[in-house]
Amino acid sequence: MKLIASLALAVAAGTLAAPAMAQFQKPEDAIKYRKASFTVLATHFGRLGAMANGRAPFDAKAAAESGAVIEMAVKLPWEAFGPGTDKGDTRAEPAIWTEQAKFKAAADKAQTEVTKLAAAAKTGNLDAIKASFGAAGASCKACHDDFRKN
Amino acid sequence: MKLIASLALAVAAGTLAAPAMAQFQKPEDAIKYRKASFTVLATHFGRLGAMANGRAPFDAKAAAESGAVIEMAVKLPWEAFGPGTDKGDTRAEPAIWTEQAKFKAAADKAQTEVTKLAAAAKTGNLDAIKASFGAAGASCKACHDDFRKN
Repeated sequence: MKLIASLALAVAAGTLAAPAMAQFQKPEDAIKYRKASFTVLATHFGRLGAMANGRAPFDAKAAAESGAVIEMAVKLPWEAFGPGTDKGDTRAEPAIWTEQAKFKAAADKAQTEVTKLAAAAKTGNLDAIKASFGAAGASCKACHDDFRKN
Repeated sequence: MKLIASLALAVAAGTLAAPAMAQFQKPEDAIKYRKASFTVLATHFGRLGAMANGRAPFDAKAAAESGAVIEMAVKLPWEAFGPGTDKGDTRAEPAIWTEQAKFKAAADKAQTEVTKLAAAAKTGNLDAIKASFGAAGASCKACHDDFRKN
C-alpha cells in the first residue's frame, strides 16, 4: 500500500510518468542509469566550461558536439528518481521524495538553463556560450546543494 | 617514451583524436565516462528490444525518444579508450589496445548498425525497428565477445 501511495503521489506530482517507471526492472537499474546520465552530462558541461573560462582553447566543432550531448543528456535522469530509488549506491537526498514539488522545480530550472547553454554551444559562438554558462552552472549547483549529498 | 609511443600509435590508428584524449584529466575519468555512455546506450537499446520482441507494448513516442538517445550515445564511448585506460575499474580486454584495427572495425560496425536502428526507431515504425534490431544487437555482442571481459 505504501508503495502504491508513493507511486500515485509521484505520478500526480509529475515527477515521473508511470510508463517510464516500468522501464526499470530494479531500483538499482534506475540509480545506475541516472548516475550515468549525469556523468555524460557533466563531462560535456565541463568541456564547455573549460572553453567558456579560457582553460581550454575554443573549438567551435567540439563545442557544438558537446552542446548536442548536453541537450540530450539533461533530459534523461529525471524519470529515474521513482519510488524505491532512494536507497542504495546513491547520493540522492531524501528531500527528493519528501519535497517533490521543490525538487521538480529545481530540476526543471536546471533543464531550462542547460538547454539554453546547449543552444548557444550548437551555434558555435563563444560569446553566447560564455553568456549562458554561468546561469546553467548555477542551476546545476542549486539542485545539487539541496538534493545531493556531498 | 612508452606513453608517447602508445599515444602516437593510437592517434595514427584513428582510435582517438589527440584533442579528445586531452579532454580526460585522469584515466579513471575516461573509464567512468565510457561506462556511463554504454549504460545510457544499453538502457534505451533494451527498451527498443523489449518492444521489438513483444515484451513491452509498442509506444511510438517512447521508441522515437529511445532512438534519439541511442543515436547520440553510440557516438560517445570510443574516444575514451585512450592509452592508460586499460587498467582500473573496467572490463575492457587488453586486445582493445593490442589489436586496435580490429577493435576499431568492431566498434565502427556497432556504431553503423545501432545508428540504423536509431533511424528506424525515430520513424516510429515497429516493423522497421524489428527489421534492424537483430543486426544491431549482433554487432554489440560481437564487440563484447572479443573486447569485453565477462
